[in-house]
Amino acid sequence: MKEINRTVQLIEVGPRDGFQSIKTFIPTEKKIALVKTLLAAGIRRMEVTSFVSPKAIPQMADAREVVAAVKAERVEGLQLTALVPNAFGARAALEMELDAVNFVLSVSETHNRENVRRTVDESFGELAKIAEEYAAVEKAPRILLSLATTFGCPFEGPQPVSRVADMVHRAAGLGVTRIIFADTIGVADPLQMETFWEDILPVLPEDLELSLHLHDTRGLGLANVYAALRFPVHSLEASFGGFGGCPFAPGAAGNIATEDLVNMLERMGISTGVDVETLSRAALELARFAPEAFNSHMARVVAGKTACCGPA
Amino acid sequence: MKEINRTVQLIEVGPRDGFQSIKTFIPTEKKIALVKTLLAAGIRRMEVTSFVSPKAIPQMADAREVVAAVKAERVEGLQLTALVPNAFGARAALEMELDAVNFVLSVSETHNRENVRRTVDESFGELAKIAEEYAAVEKAPRILLSLATTFGCPFEGPQPVSRVADMVHRAAGLGVTRIIFADTIGVADPLQMETFWEDILPVLPEDLELSLHLHDTRGLGLANVYAALRFPVHSLEASFGGFGGCPFAPGAAGNIATEDLVNMLERMGISTGVDVETLSRAALELARFAPEAFNSHMARVVAGKTACCGPA
Repeated sequence: MKEINRTVQLIEVGPRDGFQSIKTFIPTEKKIALVKTLLAAGIRRMEVTSFVSPKAIPQMADAREVVAAVKAERVEGLQLTALVPNAFGARAALEMELDAVNFVLSVSETHNRENVRRTVDESFGELAKIAEEYAAVEKAPRILLSLATTFGCPFEGPQPVSRVADMVHRAAGLGVTRIIFADTIGVADPLQMETFWEDILPVLPEDLELSLHLHDTRGLGLANVYAALRFPVHSLEASFGGFGGCPFAPGAAGNIATEDLVNMLERMGISTGVDVETLSRAALELARFAPEAFNSHMARVVAGKTACCGPA
Repeated sequence: MKEINRTVQLIEVGPRDGFQSIKTFIPTEKKIALVKTLLAAGIRRMEVTSFVSPKAIPQMADAREVVAAVKAERVEGLQLTALVPNAFGARAALEMELDAVNFVLSVSETHNRENVRRTVDESFGELAKIAEEYAAVEKAPRILLSLATTFGCPFEGPQPVSRVADMVHRAAGLGVTRIIFADTIGVADPLQMETFWEDILPVLPEDLELSLHLHDTRGLGLANVYAALRFPVHSLEASFGGFGGCPFAPGAAGNIATEDLVNMLERMGISTGVDVETLSRAALELARFAPEAFNSHMARVVAGKTACCGPA
């Protein structure tokens, strides 16, 4: 048995990817209460919102209020990120003193156009603009890059690993400190996941934080995590309740549920500092807003629908 | 990357484990139609029913009619199994000319008592009785043994691998040809799965077919399959739609969905001969009888709730 990576960290993205996927507006007070429950559960790295046009995604219209309320909690060691689609969003993140911004572009040219209405080159231009603006100020947020459709595109199919690697180098050249490889439509299988890491690791620049963002469309999210744990992936994104999904990617569905991921890691002896039960209670609360998209096993166990009992 | 086991076979247990878990009586004609759809999907190994007391499990009251209808199809290469809790059930299976009977006992003494109201020794006594009766007739069904709670018991917790191995030897001595290691309450994690195979393989008798029966209570079913594929496991049981669950094991929930397993195996280049779409249509039909227990990702993809499109 090959040893698994025991230093992997957890990043909760539910308040961005989960909330964004829910059509019913979640009242601001409810959003804030949910995020506070996540903190109480032990979450310390979180994508807390998205600074996007409220016309594009009305759910995120209260981004600033949510961030302000969470920051007011002054939780020690808390690292907050926001997704930003452009320099405009990056300015909001700077103003709100976030720790990092997550800029998204797609490995697939077609998906990038569908998702952000730009060519990949234009997206890199926007990323460069953010980097330039941030370089001019003190205490600017770090810049992270999510590479959507890394493991497959709904329009173009598989993407060459060399193309992914080229984008990572280009991003590193602009000062990006973390790369998030995203399986936007949940098509990766665990063998593909292993091959991906074997192929890309030798050609990546050093000193980058490497993350995974896995959708669970075909139920392979946790199997893919297990496959990836054979490699030095630094962090795993997940969404409480398993909500999420790119609105501009046909075939996308929810993320792996954070509580399911925590349970798997803890059972394998990897400490997360996160309490499954508290997290599950937050997931069950959120599920009221979109019961049909609820995709969490542990929250069901906690809810007692499949009563968990005894020492097993 | 270690090579994975590419010869693994699929065994559909939905008509037994799935049907059994559904409270609403599924009309006999509907059961037969569903099983025929499974055959049309390419399923060739199937646990088709259970010969139990209709008082204990009313859903199985039409076991003989279902078996007769399926056998009348005369599908080439079809291997049909029935679960039997005792010699009485084994006689019915012999009469109906099934290929094999699946006898269940639990590794955990407490769970065995809860599940079949016998001590483990008494269960082995009953198994010996079946073996003796079958030895006296020509063309008797083969005898399979499911070891419930192999990976953990809801009452007793973890079970020693040495105890599991002892039971396998005892069963092999009685002429059992296949052992099904069952994670009855879905507690195994993939690292535990690897350790299990590493520990047990060197101490098992030769020439046994080794199978896994994994519940997905905590969402780890497919991750556990992937972990097991590093080892010479011969077959994997799964249930279309992800239905299933032991009625006498608190904390049990559905099996891994056959269509999700097929998708994973096929994506990794392991041919199953099974069509995901046809299987998913059967799963969606069955889901009408127990929508709350439906646990299939691929069937949702096929249903277009998360529209699957393009080459990805």
